[in-house]
Amino acid sequence: PEVKKIAVISGDGIGPEVVAEAEKVLKRTEELFGYSFETEHALFGGIAIDEKGTPLPEETLAVCKNADAVLLGAVGGPKWDSNPKELRPETGLLGIRKALGLFSNLRPAVVFDCLKDASTLKPEVLEGTDLMVVRELTGGIYFGDKFRRQGEHGEEAVDTCVYNVAEVERIVRQAFEIAQKRRKKLASVDKANVLETSRLWREVVIRVAADYPDVELEHVLVDNCAMQLLRRPASFDVIVTENMFGDILSDEAAMLTGSIGMLASASMGEGAFGLYEPVHGSAPDIAGQNLANPIATILSLAMMLRLTFGYADAADAIEAAVAKVLNDGHRTSDIAVDKSKAIGTREMGDLIVAAM
Amino acid sequence: PEVKKIAVISGDGIGPEVVAEAEKVLKRTEELFGYSFETEHALFGGIAIDEKGTPLPEETLAVCKNADAVLLGAVGGPKWDSNPKELRPETGLLGIRKALGLFSNLRPAVVFDCLKDASTLKPEVLEGTDLMVVRELTGGIYFGDKFRRQGEHGEEAVDTCVYNVAEVERIVRQAFEIAQKRRKKLASVDKANVLETSRLWREVVIRVAADYPDVELEHVLVDNCAMQLLRRPASFDVIVTENMFGDILSDEAAMLTGSIGMLASASMGEGAFGLYEPVHGSAPDIAGQNLANPIATILSLAMMLRLTFGYADAADAIEAAVAKVLNDGHRTSDIAVDKSKAIGTREMGDLIVAAM
Ligand SMILES: CC(C)[C@H](C(=O)O)[C@@H](O)C(=O)O
Ligand SMILES: CC(C)[C@H](C(=O)O)[C@@H](O)C(=O)O
Repeated sequence: PEVKKIAVISGDGIGPEVVAEAEKVLKRTEELFGYSFETEHALFGGIAIDEKGTPLPEETLAVCKNADAVLLGAVGGPKWDSNPKELRPETGLLGIRKALGLFSNLRPAVVFDCLKDASTLKPEVLEGTDLMVVRELTGGIYFGDKFRRQGEHGEEAVDTCVYNVAEVERIVRQAFEIAQKRRKKLASVDKANVLETSRLWREVVIRVAADYPDVELEHVLVDNCAMQLLRRPASFDVIVTENMFGDILSDEAAMLTGSIGMLASASMGEGAFGLYEPVHGSAPDIAGQNLANPIATILSLAMMLRLTFGYADAADAIEAAVAKVLNDGHRTSDIAVDKSKAIGTREMGDLIVAAM
Repeated sequence: PEVKKIAVISGDGIGPEVVAEAEKVLKRTEELFGYSFETEHALFGGIAIDEKGTPLPEETLAVCKNADAVLLGAVGGPKWDSNPKELRPETGLLGIRKALGLFSNLRPAVVFDCLKDASTLKPEVLEGTDLMVVRELTGGIYFGDKFRRQGEHGEEAVDTCVYNVAEVERIVRQAFEIAQKRRKKLASVDKANVLETSRLWREVVIRVAADYPDVELEHVLVDNCAMQLLRRPASFDVIVTENMFGDILSDEAAMLTGSIGMLASASMGEGAFGLYEPVHGSAPDIAGQNLANPIATILSLAMMLRLTFGYADAADAIEAAVAKVLNDGHRTSDIAVDKSKAIGTREMGDLIVAAM
């Protein structure tokens, strides 16, 4: 079959370790299913700042643009936190999203059976929670004009939040389509009682909804959504919202599952191209010690195989292997009840490969 | 003693019922402590739209400005939800905040012993949670320019988020001062890795912090804060943040206590003037049925007596009376385990008055 190109960005902290395990899984996928992948590594984030003087070097962008999908480990760390804006890993993250047109961030928040107790929520409240946050990723207050100026009352800072109809429509349609393939419920989150961008957002949602009559739609104000996620997490199916609200709510949703170390994410553009990365961060405190949990990255790879390449068989096999290894009681230390029995990053990767 | 003037705004839904009980408590305070209050009622919100054609009539504003403090029940309801902007209760709320200069919203989130089990969080996680969100209330994206325009890609909507140094400084100083009187911990929440207003915010916080060396300060990114509130709610003391983030986080914090029907709030300006209101909404579905829980409004009155008037003895007496009535097992139906034994709004008010 056709050779698929994957840009691999290990990044900082535990990034290289967890990505290495996902690459083992990718290799096994080739052997088992006859698919063929070509990977190309590129520097990004803190390491790119150190080695190239910029978080998002031109070569890295070229490697990504030349690929069918991107696998990202994690970026950032205290080392670069007080750098000026152009020399910060986050700036690279925002830059790559914009440059690759990744307007849609998909963040499934599911509860892993073996991690039920890790949540701070009561198990009976969490029961059945399986939701997906669809976050707009290249618009809103993240990308609007930002500047300082002298105002009447001294120095002031300005951020601008802008959305146009087309930007809202493409993400909203995508969310409706995802909802159609799931439990057919969509919650659109806005602050239409205060913001003009939210009023535009809501108008578009209402218009587009006519094309998806089988999807049950509710409009939820962002403050109320922050509450309802806590009160009735299992009642949500797909949540679609703008960039800033999505940043906050997707993290809240991830945390309430108790499974944050295991959650995958995808950032999609037009067509099948996507960037896949674990929800967790770069965890510099445990980097390089074979302690990190590679499962979120491996599940991000499974998302890639499913969404970008349409290799559902391989994605299923990976997800089943992860489930089996967990069911067999294997745990990295972040999710182990008995830490003395915890296995390392590499051992977890090997077990998943073996279980495929 | 001096006669203190209180503007009383019952508002919509259950507003009039819960405010009536707080007024009984106010009367009892006069009898017990010799204080003297003069109340003046005014129309606001949905009822003002119906009767005066605007959510915030001039007379109402005059009554508030002429008073030392305002007691507000609740405003809004589905009846007015599809009105044009100028004829919506929320517009009145934003208008009154701005007109009265109420730049600081204080939202204590505490766990009531009798409601421990009402939270969806595990009791051991919630244990000891007692935090206060200090939300900036008259700036940011709520009050910046908002408009529609034709852009390159069709119609677009714009919201502007603006903060000047003075606006940030006054709320941050207030938060530090509140923290000094509590457990001396302040979490300042921003999105300094993305927003210019947040970078200004953080600069001001760092500068002002030098004047409060006894307060332990942490900077928390808003997405991380949404997670940490779930993971370690008891570790927070005072949280200070800008308007939009405060809207979301204060509701999340309130919900996680499980006590949302019992929480009070204060919105303060320069000096001692303040507007006090329960955190819960107007609950139109149970309005007029003697079902509402008046405790949040009664505790809001206690906050007024303490913060605006400095009548700590009276505030203590009210809070102790509420605790006693709850300890004696009395419950309105929202907080009753056995609903058949629930008492009504008026009965709860009478019991609290009797317990003072
Ligand atoms: C690092 C930061 C710029 C980024 C964001 O806010 O989008 C992160 O929080 C995320 O959610 O991917
Ligand atoms: C009704 C709405 C405008 C208001 C706000 O967002 O400030 C409310 O949510 C609040 O928190 O008081």
